[in-house]
Amino acid sequence: MTNGTEKWRVKHQQIISYEVVNSYNLFHPQNPSLLSAGKGNGARRFVVVDHYVYEKYSEKIREYFHFNEVEAKIIPFRGGEDNKTVESYLSIVRELDAFPIHRRDEPILAIGGGVLTDTIGFVASTYRRGVPHIKIPTTLMGYIDASIGIKTGINFDEYKNRLGSFSPPKMVLLDRSLLGTLPRRHILNGVCEIIKLAIIKDLQLFQMLEADGAYSVDTFFQDERGGAILDRAITGMLEELEPNLFEEELARKVDFGHTFSYGLETHHEAHLLHGEAVLLDIVLSVLIAKNRNLISNEETGRIFQLLASLGIVLNTSVLDPQTLWESLEERTYHRNRQQRVPLPNGLGECVFVNDICRDEVELSLKNLEDWITVKHDHNIK
Amino acid sequence: MTNGTEKWRVKHQQIISYEVVNSYNLFHPQNPSLLSAGKGNGARRFVVVDHYVYEKYSEKIREYFHFNEVEAKIIPFRGGEDNKTVESYLSIVRELDAFPIHRRDEPILAIGGGVLTDTIGFVASTYRRGVPHIKIPTTLMGYIDASIGIKTGINFDEYKNRLGSFSPPKMVLLDRSLLGTLPRRHILNGVCEIIKLAIIKDLQLFQMLEADGAYSVDTFFQDERGGAILDRAITGMLEELEPNLFEEELARKVDFGHTFSYGLETHHEAHLLHGEAVLLDIVLSVLIAKNRNLISNEETGRIFQLLASLGIVLNTSVLDPQTLWESLEERTYHRNRQQRVPLPNGLGECVFVNDICRDEVELSLKNLEDWITVKHDHNIK
Repeated sequence: MTNGTEKWRVKHQQIISYEVVNSYNLFHPQNPSLLSAGKGNGARRFVVVDHYVYEKYSEKIREYFHFNEVEAKIIPFRGGEDNKTVESYLSIVRELDAFPIHRRDEPILAIGGGVLTDTIGFVASTYRRGVPHIKIPTTLMGYIDASIGIKTGINFDEYKNRLGSFSPPKMVLLDRSLLGTLPRRHILNGVCEIIKLAIIKDLQLFQMLEADGAYSVDTFFQDERGGAILDRAITGMLEELEPNLFEEELARKVDFGHTFSYGLETHHEAHLLHGEAVLLDIVLSVLIAKNRNLISNEETGRIFQLLASLGIVLNTSVLDPQTLWESLEERTYHRNRQQRVPLPNGLGECVFVNDICRDEVELSLKNLEDWITVKHDHNIK
Repeated sequence: MTNGTEKWRVKHQQIISYEVVNSYNLFHPQNPSLLSAGKGNGARRFVVVDHYVYEKYSEKIREYFHFNEVEAKIIPFRGGEDNKTVESYLSIVRELDAFPIHRRDEPILAIGGGVLTDTIGFVASTYRRGVPHIKIPTTLMGYIDASIGIKTGINFDEYKNRLGSFSPPKMVLLDRSLLGTLPRRHILNGVCEIIKLAIIKDLQLFQMLEADGAYSVDTFFQDERGGAILDRAITGMLEELEPNLFEEELARKVDFGHTFSYGLETHHEAHLLHGEAVLLDIVLSVLIAKNRNLISNEETGRIFQLLASLGIVLNTSVLDPQTLWESLEERTYHRNRQQRVPLPNGLGECVFVNDICRDEVELSLKNLEDWITVKHDHNIK
């Protein structure tokens, strides 16, 4: 602190540090991971579990804590954007009040998809001005994206993530076996974020997807080939997040696919998963890049070919120029008055642009229809 | 980031830095302070103002922004613990949604007492995962305590500050002239926190209070003698806060007077201001210290003499052993299972103890009645 006659300066350095850990069979009684970062034997844990995971694993989870002599309150929680609300948030706060935990050494466990870890992360970051939490993703989207960063949030009125915080977890525990029973649509939902990273920053990851993506989707990423894709995606994601944890830099590669998707999700929440909206944004952005000669016809073809190989069908019916344009305007506003849109500069490289105009959006939308028709024609041949 | 085969570590260093600035006549059109830390001319400000301050200054504030060509939305807000609610919080969020501000360069201005700056600080720290805010205290309690730290919060159900965050302001602006029309009770409310600092860590501040305290209360701290007390109190408070901004160290000198007061405030919200509850805690804690021979009879006498000179009458009718004991137990729990109660070790020094027993609390309560009776007898003589 410096202290002049007229002012004082308060300075403080805060170190943020957490581990993202592969740990298989988290619910095996002898796996100590779930009890990390706190007291075990005789202590308590407040555990919020996605309700599908709860249906399948609640007995195992209960046995886990019983075996380890930890008193656990296990609460099922419904995923889905509809439940990312102030009401859900407050209901969890009330449950916490009814099952007091210690501020420092009894971290909250959030076991579920992105909606759950975002909501419970927000609870943890604000309850008594912050109690520790550990995130355990159970969806692929959570696994390679939502759970490994520090963003928390809930929706408010019609706005997504209107309330939230940057709040590092104590730890993120990754158990690939939890992905083994996801519906295929939800596997593909997460794959869209992997495709995003591949196109915008990692040619090798793109090649891995070309080689092993379809196989890994079919096998729910349960073996080494799938695991290698996941590990590489996480490495890439953390490379982008770590130096910019608080998003002080507004030009972010990981925002690729997150410019037009915002409006699509807001307008078509019932029909689009996050990854599906992101993927529509990705293909439109790729076509904008192609029209700017940032990416070649051949590279664009490889992208569409990859999608086809993964069995992804684009839901283009939700695309209209007005929604796309308004979304870009909203994101421009969010990014403090500049578009800062990441576009691929060849496969695996990135540039940021600030001058996308409405005509380009409309043209790329028209091009998208052409590409899909062409693909369709190819399939007929 | 380190990346093993089985885990990754995310590390990030965050620098927190903000100024606490004496700035007189904040609402004078040519004082640039209110437009600090953001864009001026042509930009916007979302301004929340304590409703008493609003009644008195809204025209001046409006003129200030008009003169500086800044579009301001000025919202009156009622202080008092009753308004530190989820409903108030959400209503401010809705007002913000109706008057969009930029995320980085249009800081929210919070002009009011501790309830207002705590609530608006919590809004700012969670709105869109955090927008900047500037605190301008208008009560003495805010001026030397609530506004200069980084804690935000609202009450929930029956719990005080159950939801909140550690969220540094961009700046704190101190304008002593705003204290000039406070009711005497609210001046004394803030003085209790100054007394706290004096007893627990700053003998010189105690002497300043003995010499100039009564005069400064009478003159609302408007001249240099009052200003010197305020500056020294702020310096002392920031010395304690700065190295422990996130309260990772749970043994805190500034928690002197904040052990028994918690329960008193919870039970007697309608009758006790925060400082009044703190002062009751202080005198009980001093008497516990005296019974442990940590502080002499003479020093204890100086403390009661100071209170008398300031015209402070202790509202001992709210004190009962059960409430005090439960409050200590609650705080022990809050401080992660240890009491960590600061007690004076002579005037201006501190020790932390973990072994206060119920008998001591009851004895000090009885002693307090004796001290007050004795004082009363002295007055009669």
